[in-house]
Amino acid sequence: MGTVNSRDVITLLHGAGGSYMHTLIREVFIRLSDGFGEVPLDLMDDAAVIGNTVFTTDSFVIRPIFFKGGDIGRLSVTGTVNDIAMMGGEPIALSLGVILEEGFPKSDLERIVDSIRDTAKEAKVHIVTGDTKVMERGSLDRIVINTSGLGVRPKELDHDIETLRKTRQPRDWLVPLNIRPGDKVIVTGTVGDHAVAVLSSREGVGFESNITSDVAPLNGLMLNLMEVGGIADAKDPTRGGVADLLQDWSEKSGLGIYIRESEIPVKDEVRAAVEFLGIDVLELGNEGKAVLAVSPEYVRDIMAVLHSHPLGKNAAVIGEVRKDIEGVVMETVVGGERYVGRPLGDPVPRIC
Amino acid sequence: MGTVNSRDVITLLHGAGGSYMHTLIREVFIRLSDGFGEVPLDLMDDAAVIGNTVFTTDSFVIRPIFFKGGDIGRLSVTGTVNDIAMMGGEPIALSLGVILEEGFPKSDLERIVDSIRDTAKEAKVHIVTGDTKVMERGSLDRIVINTSGLGVRPKELDHDIETLRKTRQPRDWLVPLNIRPGDKVIVTGTVGDHAVAVLSSREGVGFESNITSDVAPLNGLMLNLMEVGGIADAKDPTRGGVADLLQDWSEKSGLGIYIRESEIPVKDEVRAAVEFLGIDVLELGNEGKAVLAVSPEYVRDIMAVLHSHPLGKNAAVIGEVRKDIEGVVMETVVGGERYVGRPLGDPVPRIC
Repeated sequence: MGTVNSRDVITLLHGAGGSYMHTLIREVFIRLSDGFGEVPLDLMDDAAVIGNTVFTTDSFVIRPIFFKGGDIGRLSVTGTVNDIAMMGGEPIALSLGVILEEGFPKSDLERIVDSIRDTAKEAKVHIVTGDTKVMERGSLDRIVINTSGLGVRPKELDHDIETLRKTRQPRDWLVPLNIRPGDKVIVTGTVGDHAVAVLSSREGVGFESNITSDVAPLNGLMLNLMEVGGIADAKDPTRGGVADLLQDWSEKSGLGIYIRESEIPVKDEVRAAVEFLGIDVLELGNEGKAVLAVSPEYVRDIMAVLHSHPLGKNAAVIGEVRKDIEGVVMETVVGGERYVGRPLGDPVPRIC
Repeated sequence: MGTVNSRDVITLLHGAGGSYMHTLIREVFIRLSDGFGEVPLDLMDDAAVIGNTVFTTDSFVIRPIFFKGGDIGRLSVTGTVNDIAMMGGEPIALSLGVILEEGFPKSDLERIVDSIRDTAKEAKVHIVTGDTKVMERGSLDRIVINTSGLGVRPKELDHDIETLRKTRQPRDWLVPLNIRPGDKVIVTGTVGDHAVAVLSSREGVGFESNITSDVAPLNGLMLNLMEVGGIADAKDPTRGGVADLLQDWSEKSGLGIYIRESEIPVKDEVRAAVEFLGIDVLELGNEGKAVLAVSPEYVRDIMAVLHSHPLGKNAAVIGEVRKDIEGVVMETVVGGERYVGRPLGDPVPRIC
C-alpha cells in the first residue's frame, strides 16, 4: 500500500503561475504538443499562432466574483483579449463557456453577462459562441468562466510589415525570441493593484484597502504602440507577476535582465499592503498592465504614446536586457543587487 | 424581505439541453449577440462561423470522469471536434482549459492528458494552447475541462462548391435554414448508448449495464458524407438527445418533422435500461452520433457510405421533413401518433 505524498497530487501552487505550474506543464501537458503552428504549444506563450490566426484560452476561477474595480465577467473578456494583444494580434471574436453551481442567483448571472457585454464593447470584440453547464450544489464554488479568443494581425500594420521586421519583430508576432541585448524593459503602469484589490474584497481576510483592480483590455493601447514600432515582445504580468514574466523572458531569450527597484511604479497603498502582508509586489498578478521589451531607439516615442494614454500614464522604464548577466537581477532601493527568482506561485490564490 | 423562488436561481435543468436551457439563453445570454459573423451567436447553432473559420466552445463536467467506453479527456476532444464537423467544417486546432480541485491525483491527470492526446491524434486535430487553474479542496468536484476549437471549410470540397450549392448547402455551411420539405432524416447509429453507459458507471445508482459510451470523433465520417453531397444540415444529439435536436430543426426551419419509432436504432440493452428507469431514449445524450437532413436523391449514396463506415454501420432513415404538419410528430410502435416535444432537459445530469 502506497501513501500519497504532496508530489503526487495537485496543489494550489500548481495553478498559481510560478515554478510549480511550469513544472506541471513540462511534466504533463507538454506531451500534447506536436509543434503545429507558427507559435506552437511548446513555446508556452500567451497564445498560439496558426497561419495568420492568434488563438488562446483562459479559465477564470476568481474569488470573490465581484471585487473592487471589476467582476468575473469583465475579467473573462479582458484576460483573453490581453493574451491576444500581447502576441501582437488584434482580438476579433471570443467564445464564452459558463459553468454554474445549482442555486446560483439569476440576478448575479445577469449582472455578469451585462459586464461581459460592456467589456466586449469597450474592447471591440464580439462574443460569437457559448456553452452553459450546471453542476450540483456543493460541486462548484458558484461560477467559473472560460473564454477563448481569435485574433488576426492588425490591418493597420499590414503596410508596414517590412519596417516591423527591420525593427526586430522578425516573426511578425511578439515572442521572446525577438528580444535582444540593449532592449529596454518598460512596465505600462503600477503593479500589484489587482491582487491587492481582490484580496481586500475577500471576507475574513482581516485586511482592507481602497485599491481597485486595474482590470482593463489593453488591445487599443497595444495597437497604438505597435504603430510606433520597436516592440520586441509584450506580456501581461498576470499570475506570478512581473517576477515570473521576466524569468520567462530570460529563459526563453537566453539573455539576462537587469531592473531597478526604485523605477518600478507601485501605489503607496499597495506598497503598504504588501509590507503588511509580507508578500513581494513583483510576484502579484495584474490584469491591466503589460511589460514591454523595446528597441532603445524607439523608447522615447513609445513612452510618449504610453503617457498620453489613460492606461499607460504611469508607465516607466524599469531596466534593460543584458548579455553580461544571467537570469533576472534587481538593483534594490538600498543599493545592493539581488536575483529575482521565479516565484513558486502567486502568493494570492484564485486572483483570476 | 424577498424570498428566492426556483425561477430566480439556476437549477440543474438549466444546463441539461432542453427547454429550461433554451429559455436561459433567450432571457440572458442572447444580450451578448451582435449579429457578427456568417453564423452569429443568435442562430444558436453548434458553432459560429466568421469568414471561413468555424469557432466553437464546450465545457465538460461529466461524472464520473472515467466511464465505460471513455473518459473526460476523450469526451473533451470529441465534443468540440463534432461541433465543428456538424457545421460542415474541418477541425484543425483545439485549446484546452483544465480546472482542477486541490488534491486531484497527478496520475489521473496524466491518464486524462494521454487520452486527450490519443483522441486528438485519432481526430487529426492539434492541441495548440492551454490554461490550468486550481481551486481549493471542496470548491470543485475533481476536474472540469473546456475545449474550444477552430475549423475551416474542408479543402477536399473547395472544387465542388457549385455542386454543393445546387445540392442545397446555399450558405456553404450546414445550418437548419438549408432544410427543405421532403428531406430525409437519418440517424447515424444507435441512440442512448452514452447516457446509459455514464449512468451505469456511477456508484450508488442501483443500476448496471454493459453498454459502453459511443464517444467518438465524427469528422472523418462527415467528410466522407459531404463528398457525396446533399446534406442540408447535420447535428449531434448530445444533451437533450434526438428530441431536442428535432425540435430545434423544426423551429429554425419552420417545417414539420415526421419520424417513425420503429425505425430508430436502439440497442436491446439500452431499451431495457430506459424502460427500467422510466426515461425516454429520445431525450438521452449521445456523443458519437449525428442526425442528418438529406436531400432525397442523395439518400441511397449517403446510406451506402454510412453502412461501410464503422461509425455509421447502424445508420437508419427514421423519417422526413414535411410542410403539412407542425412540430415533431412520431408514429409510435403501436401504430398511433404523438408529438415529440422539447424535453425540459436531459433526464441524466452531467453526462457531458
